[in-house]
This record gives sequence, C-alpha cells and structure tokens, in this order.
Amino acid sequence: MSHVFDEAITVSVGDDGVFHATTHPAYSNMVGPFGGITAATIVHAIQQHPDVLGEPLAFTVNYAAPIADGDWELHARIVRTNRTNQHWIFHIEQNDSTVSTGSAVFGLHRPTWGSTEPQPPTAPAVETVEPVEFPEFIAWAGNYDKRFVVGGLDGSASEDSTSTLWIRDRPERALDYPALMSITDSFYPRVFLRHGTYMAAGTISLTTYFHATPDELAAQGVDHLLATARAARFGNGHFDQDGQIWSGDGPDAVLLATTHQLVYFKDPQ
Amino acid sequence: MSHVFDEAITVSVGDDGVFHATTHPAYSNMVGPFGGITAATIVHAIQQHPDVLGEPLAFTVNYAAPIADGDWELHARIVRTNRTNQHWIFHIEQNDSTVSTGSAVFGLHRPTWGSTEPQPPTAPAVETVEPVEFPEFIAWAGNYDKRFVVGGLDGSASEDSTSTLWIRDRPERALDYPALMSITDSFYPRVFLRHGTYMAAGTISLTTYFHATPDELAAQGVDHLLATARAARFGNGHFDQDGQIWSGDGPDAVLLATTHQLVYFKDPQ
Repeated sequence: MSHVFDEAITVSVGDDGVFHATTHPAYSNMVGPFGGITAATIVHAIQQHPDVLGEPLAFTVNYAAPIADGDWELHARIVRTNRTNQHWIFHIEQNDSTVSTGSAVFGLHRPTWGSTEPQPPTAPAVETVEPVEFPEFIAWAGNYDKRFVVGGLDGSASEDSTSTLWIRDRPERALDYPALMSITDSFYPRVFLRHGTYMAAGTISLTTYFHATPDELAAQGVDHLLATARAARFGNGHFDQDGQIWSGDGPDAVLLATTHQLVYFKDPQ
Repeated sequence: MSHVFDEAITVSVGDDGVFHATTHPAYSNMVGPFGGITAATIVHAIQQHPDVLGEPLAFTVNYAAPIADGDWELHARIVRTNRTNQHWIFHIEQNDSTVSTGSAVFGLHRPTWGSTEPQPPTAPAVETVEPVEFPEFIAWAGNYDKRFVVGGLDGSASEDSTSTLWIRDRPERALDYPALMSITDSFYPRVFLRHGTYMAAGTISLTTYFHATPDELAAQGVDHLLATARAARFGNGHFDQDGQIWSGDGPDAVLLATTHQLVYFKDPQ
C-alpha cells in the first residue's frame, strides 16, 4: 500500500517534458493545498529528471495565487549545469494562469571542512510529549505527528513567536528530500501564535536550504525531527519567519535544513 | 555629480522591454561584479517599470555563473498582480548565456499590527569605531564605510562566524531600496572568518526580505546602518548565512531587512 505522501507528490511527464500533478484532498489547507506538499512535489519532479545533478541544495517557491483543487502543470527546466551544481527555474500553470514560480539549485555534496554553529533547542523525549491535532479545516496537518515542546496553538497569545516541536510523517515514512521540503513549510504562521488565534495569513515566498546529505537522511529513517521556528519582524501586512529542522536534540544532532519565508497577514477583525 | 552607486545601477530600456546594464569597475569583486550591485540593479530596474506595484518585499537571485565585465541584459516580467502584491521573475543574459535567475515580490505596505522580536546587536557609537579597508582585489568594498564591532577579517580564525558592523555607502548616499538590497549582500563569506583567511567561495542563491517602509528609509537618510550576519551550518562544500540590517542600535532601532544566502566554498589548499 502506498503512503499518502507518495500519492500526493506523484507526477507524470508528458512528451513535452511538462510534469502533471493533482492536488490531494489529504493535504488541503484553508485555501488551496498546503504549500509544503506543492513544494515537495516540485522537488520530487526535479529528482525524476534524467539530467538532474545531485541533490537539492536551495529551493525558492513563490505562491502567487492559490492552487485550485484538481490538476496542475509544472514547467521546470535546467538553466545551467556547472561542475558541481545545477540551476533550475520552474512555474506552475493551472487553467492557463501562472500560480507559482520559483527556482532550485541542485548539486553534489563534496567532502569539506564542516561546522554547525547554532545549537538544537532543548526538548523532552519524544514519547513524553503528547501529539496534538489541528482543526479539520487544516487537513494536511493530520498527516503529521506533531508534539509541541513550546508554541503549540492553545488559544492564548504569546509574546514570543517561537514554536518547537517533534514532527514526523504519519503514518511513519523514511525521510527523503521531498518529505524534508514539506516539513520546512509545516510551521503555522507565527502571527497566529502572537495573537493566540487563526487569522487570514498565507506564505508569499519560501526559501529552504538543504544541508542534509543522503547518508544523513538514511540515518534519520522514520525518527521524529526536532523543528523550531520564530518570526523576526511583523508589520505593514507582512512578516518573515525562520526555521531549523534538526535530526534530534543534544550535542550530536544534525542540522538538516534551514528555512525562511515571507508571509502575508491581515489583522483580525 | 552623480554618485558611483547610481552610475553602477543605471539601466536603459529597449523597445522590447529588455533592460540593459553594464558592469562598473568600482563594484568589481574577485570574480565578476559584486553580487550586491547586480541585485541592486535588478531592484532598481523593476522600480522603473510603469506597471510596478508598491515596493520590494521579497527578492531571490541565483548566481548561476559569473558575469563578465561589460554589458548585460535583464529580462524581467510580471507574472501576476494581486490586489496588494505583484510577482516578478527575471533572468540575466550575457553573451547568449543565462548567468542569473530569480524572482521578486513587490507590494503595498498596509497599516497593521507590528512587532519586532529580535534585538539589535549592541555596538559602540559609530564615531568610536575605526573604518577598515579591504584588499584592493575586493574593489566594491571601497564604496562602503565599514566599521566592524565584531568579526572583522583580521587574519585570525574565529570559532564564531558572527560579524557586526556599522556600514553605509561611501560617499554618503540617502538609503533607498537598491542601496539596502546591495548592503544585504555585503557580508563577506562567513567561512573566511572561521578560517581567518580568504578562500574560494561564492554566493549561489540569495534571498532578502525587505521590512523597511518608504518612511523608514527616508528617516534613515545617510546614517550608518548596523548590520550583523552569522552562518548556520558549513559542510560538504556549502554553507548558509543569515543577516539582519538595523537602522541603528538600542531599543528604538528598526529592523529594515533580513537576508539569507547559500554559499559555495572550497577548503583552502
């Protein structure tokens, strides 16, 4: 039996090289599909390309308009292939309209000096933290086991927009680049936490940097990830938020991805 | 007399809507032009477009290949205009080859609730910090007055990749969006600081979020900005670094922009 995530990111390729995808009801959001599943589908599609070089390193997607339920087309092409990296641009078409644009850099992992400067957040053991459910109108969240260490949305406003949570696909699924991509967009808008309520808000532009090597993904397997996010500045209808995805807590934890987004919001009426 | 920055970001528009620009020797870098001046030129060009909506909010540029000294073409187009924001994509062509790609979101600043969570770094007064000069092969840096509070490149390795500096254009120039764009790419690669030496390194992908309103830019005028940057993870040939550009220090400082980039590097031989 296939995993619902694999069903959702499925693409087929036409003779013209255009990828065809379809929204999956299990990953719907308040308006249109969850952005993370759209981004994961793009990463997955590029990985299928016969000329792809290496693994994803940097990925930016701009959500210009909501995707409607149904079929959509991904137009992706290689702009330039260098010795160790490859530049892609893409856009999503639906009903003769461009609804998303973006770019991706894929490339090779070469052995070099390494160092990670930030520390993972401290967190109690996964099994001691209760999973929480989001309301039904956030369908996609049902496909994640989410255990908030801080910053769960419990209805109270917070002076600090930080959320830290243990997260993995539900049912369990071994981590790969599409799954990691999706999880980097799984933080709910930080403005909800500051106000303690759902509000009109949506990601405009998302950038993820993949630090994980294929070996690090394999070592992660189905274990919970430790994810943390925080906003910088809110104001004038927008805010940005930054996130980190760690393999776990403690001194040996690996920083698998960093992620940034600009979000649109409206004041609650 | 025109400012060298304005000379460098000058564009002309052809009948076909293509923008024409030329590299400026005052902003050359080790290989090709300083990425910040390229990005600033793109922001400036989009601002000239008769159909532009509002001001820059999010900007991503991918440096796929070095730009050679001389003329280059910017192909920029509006993908979608929403009620309060507008999505652009662009690429740079030179000698029939695509050397950069990217996307920009412009939009309106609407009055909403606001809050800034991070604090600016602490810093001594501008006039008590000595400006430093970079070597001549980093020509562009000569157009900035740079006063490092921490993390100046003095030849010693550091365990912490943080640099904090007072910076402004030299000669003085009132801050605008192109100037702010350029300054978000003015942090030298963090790997230099960790190793205490210049190394082969170059930005692959840069994303800047503009928080500054036109009024905040006007209030800044020619005053020094307080800029800070730090890396997250180095390894396997790449690292990412994050930066913040503040209007100054202290409790009333305004966070004008946040910025992120993925950088390629080679170990020193």
